[in-house]
Amino acid sequence: MQEFNIKSTSKEIISQLQSKIDSKTKPIGALGMLELIALKIGLIQNTLSPELINPTIIVFAGDHGIASEGVSAYPQEVTHQMVLNFLSGGAAICVFSKQNGINLKIVDAGVNFNFSNTPNLINAKISMGTKNFLNSPAMDKVQCENALSKGALIVKEQGENGCNIIGFGEMGIGNTSSASIIMSILCNISIEKCVGRGTGLDDSSLKRKTQILKQAIKKHIPDVEKGNPLSVLSTFGGFEIAMICGGILQAAELNMIILIDGFIVTSALLVALKINPSVLDYCIFCHKSDEKGHSNVLNNLNIEPLLDLKMRLGEGTGVAIAYPLIKSALNFLNNMASFEDANVTKKTI
Amino acid sequence: MQEFNIKSTSKEIISQLQSKIDSKTKPIGALGMLELIALKIGLIQNTLSPELINPTIIVFAGDHGIASEGVSAYPQEVTHQMVLNFLSGGAAICVFSKQNGINLKIVDAGVNFNFSNTPNLINAKISMGTKNFLNSPAMDKVQCENALSKGALIVKEQGENGCNIIGFGEMGIGNTSSASIIMSILCNISIEKCVGRGTGLDDSSLKRKTQILKQAIKKHIPDVEKGNPLSVLSTFGGFEIAMICGGILQAAELNMIILIDGFIVTSALLVALKINPSVLDYCIFCHKSDEKGHSNVLNNLNIEPLLDLKMRLGEGTGVAIAYPLIKSALNFLNNMASFEDANVTKKTI
Repeated sequence: MQEFNIKSTSKEIISQLQSKIDSKTKPIGALGMLELIALKIGLIQNTLSPELINPTIIVFAGDHGIASEGVSAYPQEVTHQMVLNFLSGGAAICVFSKQNGINLKIVDAGVNFNFSNTPNLINAKISMGTKNFLNSPAMDKVQCENALSKGALIVKEQGENGCNIIGFGEMGIGNTSSASIIMSILCNISIEKCVGRGTGLDDSSLKRKTQILKQAIKKHIPDVEKGNPLSVLSTFGGFEIAMICGGILQAAELNMIILIDGFIVTSALLVALKINPSVLDYCIFCHKSDEKGHSNVLNNLNIEPLLDLKMRLGEGTGVAIAYPLIKSALNFLNNMASFEDANVTKKTI
Repeated sequence: MQEFNIKSTSKEIISQLQSKIDSKTKPIGALGMLELIALKIGLIQNTLSPELINPTIIVFAGDHGIASEGVSAYPQEVTHQMVLNFLSGGAAICVFSKQNGINLKIVDAGVNFNFSNTPNLINAKISMGTKNFLNSPAMDKVQCENALSKGALIVKEQGENGCNIIGFGEMGIGNTSSASIIMSILCNISIEKCVGRGTGLDDSSLKRKTQILKQAIKKHIPDVEKGNPLSVLSTFGGFEIAMICGGILQAAELNMIILIDGFIVTSALLVALKINPSVLDYCIFCHKSDEKGHSNVLNNLNIEPLLDLKMRLGEGTGVAIAYPLIKSALNFLNNMASFEDANVTKKTI
């Protein structure tokens, strides 16, 4: 597998950054999480005056063999239909990215459709979808490594265009099933706490989904190499999840700010964190998904994301709507007056 | 007191609005609270295609006699110093309003300072600050009614400029003390659950603040007319709180979207709700303040605000940074493709 040279961020300027934050005309700590974001980004960029350049969201789309088991409320064809919707600007992620000045890139990671006449789609297709992991591993090792590399390459290209803040989104009917199993194995949490309703399963379908995922884990667990995150990824993952994982690793190597969306993207991050835990220094968690497993995995990582709006749409929508908050964090750091500038008296008791 | 003709919003188009929301290319309910905001604004404007025009935040500033008791971590002079900081663009609210395209108006509701050479400040000064309510009522009835009317007039002027969405902010050293007592009496919650650290009191100062507020309540409670919110407001309030209350009532009469900030603005809203509970139909709660009383009052009202970023700065900063989320709610409603538009297959199970 491609190696990434990822280092923990330098903490050299942390006290200077904190002093700058505390010098602003506000009570100490009064901007709450915005102050933590400003500090984090200052460390990522190793500067007291960080900036956001060419913000970009990449949406990776892929199909899943497990969809044929009826684990989603929508049929598989919705994956490619939504990709076309992304390209024509009608999806939520298009509307929110446009509103907030974010570049949007759509990637075919492995959709079961021939997109021959769609020049705006980035073609990184590994195959027409993963295999049904109830029967065999979702992908083979070569496919998995290809997906990681392609995801990394696409991120690298954004970096070459000057982008220093990158968000990840996804589309793939069936992909909460993959994410649930990845989470269950990598975090050692029972599958029941990782499975949710996805796009809207009712009680009986949710029960069925849980049974199917249990069965799949039972089948493969003897073959999954313990402690090998890539083995878990290739057995149960999706091509979009693998590409996001490779993209995250590449972004961390390039000192980019990494914006984490909901449940699926977090599952890709879990794999990346097992490969190199320093990746976490570069991540901002944009929202808590209403998909049940997401709260549990965030608790496991001890993370409080920026937003909790009961959203569960994927596509990177949590990233797109949280982005103005990240801008606010840097705007206060760069543009607010200090007590000294504004001749405001400091705290007296 | 000035009468306001405030009606509950018409629910005539509620099912049409919900159908429009549900027709968008996303699982039912997948945009969570953004869907509730879209629905609420559709009802306020009684249209399937609502819009936001000339968004404006008005920051009302006033001084408080109770500040002389040492209930704040900052001295009283910080109120006028911060007003000057607002006018010169260095405060957090200036930075965030500018970022998000929001007009910002600053009002002298009753600051203990002579702002003679500041043309951009709206002069609505009632007096050089309220009286210390440990000794006498903060204001008399005429002052209170004047403040309500002036707040209403300033909002009316924004409406005449086409503004249909208005947020309220405040500045006033000592005003968490006023807000705590208003909340305690109007919500019938013990003062201990309403008092917090304000701009950053330590444990012993917090204890002292609580004792002072208890003493003030004990002194005035025989004279405060039970069930008369204006009596509570004039006895314990601030001029900025009274003007916000008048502004909220006027905004509801004018069918404007009302953006509620943190603890102080919520205390002004409590008074307005006692005057006319239909005001709530027009309110969007932008954030949960880290000031302790705010969680308790929001629970009392059964409200979940958009943001919970542990901020406690006031000034309307919660409104300013939440505004892009409100834009997102209308953008998805107005600009996303429907399943039909995009030829996407609907849910099958």
